[in-house]
Amino acid sequence: MRVAVLRLGHRPERDQRVTTHVGLTARALGAEGMYLAADDAGVVTSIRDVAARWGGDFFVEHRVRWRRCIEEWKASGGCAVHLTMYGLPVQDVVGRIRASKDVLVIVGAEKVPGDVYGLADYNVAVTSQPHSEIAALAVFLDQLFEGKELGREFPGAAISIEPSPRGKKTAERDRREA
Amino acid sequence: MRVAVLRLGHRPERDQRVTTHVGLTARALGAEGMYLAADDAGVVTSIRDVAARWGGDFFVEHRVRWRRCIEEWKASGGCAVHLTMYGLPVQDVVGRIRASKDVLVIVGAEKVPGDVYGLADYNVAVTSQPHSEIAALAVFLDQLFEGKELGREFPGAAISIEPSPRGKKTAERDRREA
Repeated sequence: MRVAVLRLGHRPERDQRVTTHVGLTARALGAEGMYLAADDAGVVTSIRDVAARWGGDFFVEHRVRWRRCIEEWKASGGCAVHLTMYGLPVQDVVGRIRASKDVLVIVGAEKVPGDVYGLADYNVAVTSQPHSEIAALAVFLDQLFEGKELGREFPGAAISIEPSPRGKKTAERDRREA
Repeated sequence: MRVAVLRLGHRPERDQRVTTHVGLTARALGAEGMYLAADDAGVVTSIRDVAARWGGDFFVEHRVRWRRCIEEWKASGGCAVHLTMYGLPVQDVVGRIRASKDVLVIVGAEKVPGDVYGLADYNVAVTSQPHSEIAALAVFLDQLFEGKELGREFPGAAISIEPSPRGKKTAERDRREA
């Protein structure tokens, strides 16, 4: 199953940090890339920089036209999931979504165009409480992959961490050896 | 099991939005409150405002001394869990943590005092990849509560959402009736 994130409603001055968290969460929890429906080279650079040092082949594209992105994903047989507190409980629908070929996870900022609710195959809520699109994405991906994404490896990393009960252990490698 | 969050390293100018997301995520995913080791009345007000309208009895305290908070929690028989990408994989340790009476989840910002690694009973990683403390908290709480927190109710809400496959359905209630 291929999973990507479409980030909507990003405002370059205000949302850089949250959108960067969305992208890094997507990468860490098993998505293959993020489409950003905004023009923000700074966010793209900072996520690509992490991906280059920490391994794997996460992609980021910006200046994406969101409607076309959703329509193309669906036309190729994929399923579009819009995360919204107004949607159906994730625990009730994630099983059905898991049976899909590919999943595009749509993550809005404060305002989302009304059409998105209709274009999405599923409107999904990680609780019906106001909290954080980063948290909603994280729980959704963890449930979609049933926790298996937590053990994922990121090949070609220049830097990695050795898990430790106390303190910090990192391993650095010359990228040419990787 | 009582669960609370201790937010460390918050910088008032820079981290207001991320810390607000941490607090709202804690509330939505089953924690009973947040201790903020910083002086920031703005964050406290915005989280309390959500809690007052959306129900439940989530607490927020700021100007908390983090070392005393951890020590008092442990002295009363609780367990302190520090979320850090350097720690042990959540999937390996969450079962043991679940057996604890009470859990204090320590969520740092960019810099965390070195002592925290030693004071914590567990240093826990939600992947060893750089991503987001909001995402790490969300996955940790969802795994700790085994998804049961997703169906939680928030009594006394003035506003609530009726889950819907499309669109937005809210119910508003006079708080005096609630």
